[in-house]
Amino acid sequence: MNLETPCLVVDEAIMKRNIARMAEVAAKNGCKLRPHTKTHKIPAIARLQVAAGADGITVAKVGEAEVMAEQGLSDIFIAYPVIGTGKIARVLALNRRIRLIVGVDSIAGATALSEAALADGQTIEVRLEVDTGMHRTGVGYEQALEFAKTLAGFSGIRLTGIFTFKGLIYEGKATLDREKAGLEEGRLLVDLAEKLRQAGIAIRDVSVGSTPTAAYAAQVPGVTEIRPGTYVFNDTMLANLGVCSPEDCALSVLTTVVSRAADYAVVDGGNKTFSTDAAQGVFPYYLKGYGRTVGDDQLILERLSEEHGIVSILPGAGEIRVGDVLAIIPNHVCTTVNLHDKLYLRRDGRIVGEAAIAGRGKVS
Amino acid sequence: MNLETPCLVVDEAIMKRNIARMAEVAAKNGCKLRPHTKTHKIPAIARLQVAAGADGITVAKVGEAEVMAEQGLSDIFIAYPVIGTGKIARVLALNRRIRLIVGVDSIAGATALSEAALADGQTIEVRLEVDTGMHRTGVGYEQALEFAKTLAGFSGIRLTGIFTFKGLIYEGKATLDREKAGLEEGRLLVDLAEKLRQAGIAIRDVSVGSTPTAAYAAQVPGVTEIRPGTYVFNDTMLANLGVCSPEDCALSVLTTVVSRAADYAVVDGGNKTFSTDAAQGVFPYYLKGYGRTVGDDQLILERLSEEHGIVSILPGAGEIRVGDVLAIIPNHVCTTVNLHDKLYLRRDGRIVGEAAIAGRGKVS
Repeated sequence: MNLETPCLVVDEAIMKRNIARMAEVAAKNGCKLRPHTKTHKIPAIARLQVAAGADGITVAKVGEAEVMAEQGLSDIFIAYPVIGTGKIARVLALNRRIRLIVGVDSIAGATALSEAALADGQTIEVRLEVDTGMHRTGVGYEQALEFAKTLAGFSGIRLTGIFTFKGLIYEGKATLDREKAGLEEGRLLVDLAEKLRQAGIAIRDVSVGSTPTAAYAAQVPGVTEIRPGTYVFNDTMLANLGVCSPEDCALSVLTTVVSRAADYAVVDGGNKTFSTDAAQGVFPYYLKGYGRTVGDDQLILERLSEEHGIVSILPGAGEIRVGDVLAIIPNHVCTTVNLHDKLYLRRDGRIVGEAAIAGRGKVS
Repeated sequence: MNLETPCLVVDEAIMKRNIARMAEVAAKNGCKLRPHTKTHKIPAIARLQVAAGADGITVAKVGEAEVMAEQGLSDIFIAYPVIGTGKIARVLALNRRIRLIVGVDSIAGATALSEAALADGQTIEVRLEVDTGMHRTGVGYEQALEFAKTLAGFSGIRLTGIFTFKGLIYEGKATLDREKAGLEEGRLLVDLAEKLRQAGIAIRDVSVGSTPTAAYAAQVPGVTEIRPGTYVFNDTMLANLGVCSPEDCALSVLTTVVSRAADYAVVDGGNKTFSTDAAQGVFPYYLKGYGRTVGDDQLILERLSEEHGIVSILPGAGEIRVGDVLAIIPNHVCTTVNLHDKLYLRRDGRIVGEAAIAGRGKVS
């Protein structure tokens, strides 16, 4: 099968191995796995994760939850505040069909959810998001106990867990000590859960962990669930961090050389094909260009226009001509997948199918 | 109409004024306008541009040309090398239905196109792309004459024009002297066209110009066509450069505040909603955050995760609460539109319709 480039290709065996390994991490530590599906946004892959042992999935958006529920996923955590009457109505509709859990981090959000659920005769399961250093959503760690007490008093919602995303590595502040980071993340939330229980709040789920930290966070007694996402495909960023090996990267972007100059080539993928959030300069120092060229580290995807990728040809690089196809492992696979409508599946070196990235564009 | 956020909203009156103004720039200079539709990727908007006086459109991808042709656009320039048998076959199919022009910058590319066209009994109109400093696609300026002589000897393709994209401003190397840049871009290509004509090559079309430079390039005698794209919506980058005023920005991203901390708020749009190619640090120094908050310059969209936008609340900012909606003009509108499936149209302050971004995802 001749693929039109640029396009995404996923090696099925590598993906399945990644899925199995993370399931094993959870199993051997006796905690649950609820993978974040924002990386692939494909119901069929989410079902593979569940079949391999995941206890449900995580999404960021109500629209993603809807797509996943339509395709048979029946236990979904929207790890994001649900704000606005339209979104709350959609959450209530989903809650009738599947087990749904929703993130909460404000009194305003909790009040609106509570009132709508009560009016509809429903109860929505919620988890309190706690900020452990990422400084985005989540109530402050020191304020969490008071907040949880208030939440516990609401009708129409039932507080069953707490969660956090520490995300230090993705913010470029990596100490590279993933073990320390994961253990700290887990202990912070387990300690908090204990405090809440002592105050009479029945916290069942303690949910932490990203791909770099999940294996360590899972070891902390009291952590009940990990929520890694990127591990399903892995990417150049994770390989450079040592979280995976280059051979564990399941997804590559196929591009065609469309132009040649003396010391560079141009491929048919620019910043509408490769994401730019994980770029050298603004991001971890160890990134060189916008991805890693499979089989030739002297070909660096160094500069992107919208539809042009300028590949610097360093000394020692192989011959490269107009028409050649380069496979490039993107720096950040989640945001790169988000630029595409579909991906191709490769088995034993052959393309065996394609999958629509059904949750892509379901931004609200 | 209550919109679910995040979403794109285009003010119709501003867009139509932008379209009319650029048509006037072309008309008063006696040159043609062939807008690059990569900014919106919406056939209905391309038709508005043609209705306002454009002589055809420009696209970057064969897939975009197909979408536009399906919706009635009948004069399309693919300003990009078409490489690979699959894409060439699609070009031949399009060439039977509409006036098509294709960019060429390599002997390999020209040979393949020529052979396929000959075998199919067709002639493809091509333009030679010339590199005038951008260093991506395009033959070197000094090599263009020899290259054009070779091209002119090919059957199955007919060389009718030359084109360039100097793009100095978008590369962060802006002198801010757009007049000088536009005039230089025009003169370089007009001089080259003259050289080619003296060598007996009938160059009809001399095509240059981006949104910042088009008004100046159009003034150069001998320039026959300008290809600006971003002007249809404009964006924060162009406003900060003085290319347009903030009131000329037609598109904003509506986001909802989903979380509040003491000195920041979090909105429901991250780097899957706002593009990151035009960011402070890697890009023009004059950008502050990832967009401009309409009505409150003290609210800065300073940091993005995939689905979180962290808005710094500077001294003097207005009150901001969970549930509030912020309209944010993105830094770079072309790559931001590319993240979304549709946009809403606002007329006289009311939402009157929506349009699918039909060319989005047509990356190959």
